[in-house]
Amino acid sequence: MTGSAQRGRFITLEGGEGAGKSTQARRLAAALAEAGLPVLLTREPGGAPGAEAVRGLILSRGFDPIAECLLHFVARREHVARLIAPALAAGIWVVCDRFADSTFAYQVHGQGVTRPVFEAIAAAALGGLAPDLTLMLEVPEALGLERALRRGEVNRYDRLDDAFHARVRAGFATVLAENPGRCVRIDAAPPADAVTDAILVAVRSRLLPP
Amino acid sequence: MTGSAQRGRFITLEGGEGAGKSTQARRLAAALAEAGLPVLLTREPGGAPGAEAVRGLILSRGFDPIAECLLHFVARREHVARLIAPALAAGIWVVCDRFADSTFAYQVHGQGVTRPVFEAIAAAALGGLAPDLTLMLEVPEALGLERALRRGEVNRYDRLDDAFHARVRAGFATVLAENPGRCVRIDAAPPADAVTDAILVAVRSRLLPP
Repeated sequence: MTGSAQRGRFITLEGGEGAGKSTQARRLAAALAEAGLPVLLTREPGGAPGAEAVRGLILSRGFDPIAECLLHFVARREHVARLIAPALAAGIWVVCDRFADSTFAYQVHGQGVTRPVFEAIAAAALGGLAPDLTLMLEVPEALGLERALRRGEVNRYDRLDDAFHARVRAGFATVLAENPGRCVRIDAAPPADAVTDAILVAVRSRLLPP
Repeated sequence: MTGSAQRGRFITLEGGEGAGKSTQARRLAAALAEAGLPVLLTREPGGAPGAEAVRGLILSRGFDPIAECLLHFVARREHVARLIAPALAAGIWVVCDRFADSTFAYQVHGQGVTRPVFEAIAAAALGGLAPDLTLMLEVPEALGLERALRRGEVNRYDRLDDAFHARVRAGFATVLAENPGRCVRIDAAPPADAVTDAILVAVRSRLLPP
């Protein structure tokens, strides 16, 4: 009870539509809490009052691609400054449904923002903060779209065309290939329980001491 | 009537509260129009529909300083992409009341965002676009505040303290000192007509062929 708390760990879930990120984020947070860890479950875009206001703006209209990329990082910076960084500093584990990799996949691969522009904005906004572990949920394209449709959740991105979704998938695959130390591929095609099991194995092996 | 139009020139007016930027921007645009030049008068933050929505967000609440800096560049990017760049490409002269130098003065000098962070965001958002001429309007601090109060315009920045306004002034002075090729100091203490004359002299000598 004396001394400063050990820094919490920062876990993100990434992947395209219908991969089951929200469900699995909830289950992971519950499992960590059950294991006695202090845990904060949050999501992007949004997660803090200023960030939620920006989320509304992003969903309300089409912006120029670089403007939209900047806008995602406004929300992310607000989310990090107000919520994520203080939680981690206080020893709380943070489970976040989408983070910067989604902006890379959607805005760089999907909408054509260049990589140097993305990286300059990300570095300015995050000052080096990166997840300790990113769970990259992958589903076959047809299954992901089927799940997204079944949920009845249709947002602006969902209405974009197949070529766009293929580029987004390629973006997530690039992140996974380039960051083996941070990212773990999770096969999200099986039933939810099996996916949760795979996630817990990954979290235990990467972040929890044996 | 054949061939592509010559690129328009991009003129910004900068300076602290009560320097008379809006009045002088209006008068400069009128003088250019009278000289037969196609001219667009605009202002920041705002100037395009998406940018106006961001302006509302900026004025509505306090953001983390880096988030606020990013937010100004969201609005600016939208303004540039939708309005300023197309106008310049079409041969239209653009007169803009505040631009990136204001973000440098208010967010870097005023609110403590670091210069590398500002520069990375500015480069990502603007891709090298810079004004051809920046009119840096300077008034003694007491006179500027007196004018701003008299106008009855009080926004969040106006309510900040004297030390903040002194830092903002130092920020504009830094821009002026570091960019002699782009910036001209305009003494904005004299009556408006005399200030307009000084501005027209500067524009003629810098941008109009003899």
